[in-house]
Amino acid sequence: MKIFTFTFTFKFKPGILRTTMIILSGGTGTPKLIDGLRNLLPDEEITVIVNTGEDIWSSEVFITPDIDTVLYLFAGILDKTRWWSIIGDTYNTYHQMKELGLSEILMLGDRDRAVNLARTDMLKKGMTLTEATADISKSFGIRAAIIPMSDDVITSMIETPRGQMHFQEFWVTHKGTPDILSFEYRGIGEARLSPAAKVALEKEDCVIIGPSNPMTSIGPILALPEIKEILKTKKVIAVSPIIGNEAVSGPAGKLMAAKGLDVSSKSVAALYKDFIDVFVYDIRDGVLNPEDIEKMGIKAVALDTMMTDEERRTELAREILKLFNLLSV
Amino acid sequence: MKIFTFTFTFKFKPGILRTTMIILSGGTGTPKLIDGLRNLLPDEEITVIVNTGEDIWSSEVFITPDIDTVLYLFAGILDKTRWWSIIGDTYNTYHQMKELGLSEILMLGDRDRAVNLARTDMLKKGMTLTEATADISKSFGIRAAIIPMSDDVITSMIETPRGQMHFQEFWVTHKGTPDILSFEYRGIGEARLSPAAKVALEKEDCVIIGPSNPMTSIGPILALPEIKEILKTKKVIAVSPIIGNEAVSGPAGKLMAAKGLDVSSKSVAALYKDFIDVFVYDIRDGVLNPEDIEKMGIKAVALDTMMTDEERRTELAREILKLFNLLSV
Repeated sequence: MKIFTFTFTFKFKPGILRTTMIILSGGTGTPKLIDGLRNLLPDEEITVIVNTGEDIWSSEVFITPDIDTVLYLFAGILDKTRWWSIIGDTYNTYHQMKELGLSEILMLGDRDRAVNLARTDMLKKGMTLTEATADISKSFGIRAAIIPMSDDVITSMIETPRGQMHFQEFWVTHKGTPDILSFEYRGIGEARLSPAAKVALEKEDCVIIGPSNPMTSIGPILALPEIKEILKTKKVIAVSPIIGNEAVSGPAGKLMAAKGLDVSSKSVAALYKDFIDVFVYDIRDGVLNPEDIEKMGIKAVALDTMMTDEERRTELAREILKLFNLLSV
Repeated sequence: MKIFTFTFTFKFKPGILRTTMIILSGGTGTPKLIDGLRNLLPDEEITVIVNTGEDIWSSEVFITPDIDTVLYLFAGILDKTRWWSIIGDTYNTYHQMKELGLSEILMLGDRDRAVNLARTDMLKKGMTLTEATADISKSFGIRAAIIPMSDDVITSMIETPRGQMHFQEFWVTHKGTPDILSFEYRGIGEARLSPAAKVALEKEDCVIIGPSNPMTSIGPILALPEIKEILKTKKVIAVSPIIGNEAVSGPAGKLMAAKGLDVSSKSVAALYKDFIDVFVYDIRDGVLNPEDIEKMGIKAVALDTMMTDEERRTELAREILKLFNLLSV
């Protein structure tokens, strides 16, 4: 727990609270929040540190799904019905491959495949994932900083009764149905926080931990060395991806249960308790007792976190920016 | 030279001469002739041994352009305006890659890319190119036998004043403009004729050497060990890809000149003289003296080899089948 007495300067423009913001993001919930933030802050004042623990080699390319989602969001081409892939993309290669008996783990659109081919080409030429991401960002005219959590390869592996499998295989190929015996971030022991992420974190005061899966999206970021110590020195607001005893989307619940955790916002807060200042939970959450959060020394704030349309995404983002303001009072 | 006294049995059906036929093929001229043959013979009686000397790794896939052309021809999806690629294919990945600054040496369509991805996947799993080609043929419902000349990697490299480059780079990227100082089939020293091609050749009597580039299409096939000795025991008809002093299409002329050869049908016949029985040249060829061919112990036959429409392709194929018949009289 930190004392709320930072010198913390917001830049204002009429009616809109502004600051430079770092967001830790996975692939679905947090991009929705970023979508809202983009209506309040110029892109160049947004830095996103993105989970890479779900990265996978498939069809000869290195796919980093969460980075692609964030890239497409800022490029203005994200399919916001699915919150992954490029809007209007075609799937001609995918379907022809299927006819030839080759099923891809991830369904890559034709333009999406090009992005992954470009990235793979850069990595093979010796660029880091951070450099490749910056290069692709530039081509798309993106002004936000999109930074992979690490330049090292970390792979989320799930142990199931059917054997060990990559998280994407579990989630996409098997639709999340196998029981989870355990899971691990393979490679995390040797991985480092990406230097660019470290520099960005050193420069900024405000960090949002988005409503992404605390096990496979935020978990790998927090498992990197140094990151928790750095977050302890920042103003950090986390948004819960759980309402009651269920994840808003994705396999977070099943993965938390596999770690012996209650599927609840309280469990999420407990995971983050050493380095967050405010914990945002959903107004519909009938299970959470905010006093349990306050007992951890964290301010609990109930907000509408169901970001089902752009207005609600912007509203949640606005409330979070206000909370940062309050933190500095 | 062989004496024309084989026991040679044609199977007839009313009006159409039939036999099982092996064709040595490159990527443009010969597929046109095969297109004609398909109107006279059922596909299962056609075996094509295809040049692989122009194969190239590009965009993470192993592209074997001549095999793809023959595959698409038999699958009924070849773009017969260009004589490469799939008709109606889209180029969404290609264009998106270009926007990201990544130019492909070969312009792959989206469905075409899928075929190359499937092949690459099979090769990486340990299949030979022959097996991968058979697998893809089966998926396309192809009944002809399409056999790569070799399962080993042979790469046509061109030495130019701008440096050494892959044949495809010379022909596609640089549009065939650099001077050719020399060229080589890299890897040919260790390469073997594919076992399937050898078995097919042992079984059949009739071989057509199609009107493909004698340097980069037919040349690599003939440079493989054993093939010339095998051809000496067969009835072989070769079709010249040269009319007068020019190649009908492609860079054959420039490559022949680089080898110190006259660009002429006579030069082509001289390259093939040890193992062909009949040499077909174009009725428009004002340079060739057929007596020069006959002096090599080869029958010279003037035919219309400009296969600009399906009727003319079928007509040339029909004349060639008739010639095989005459060979056995």
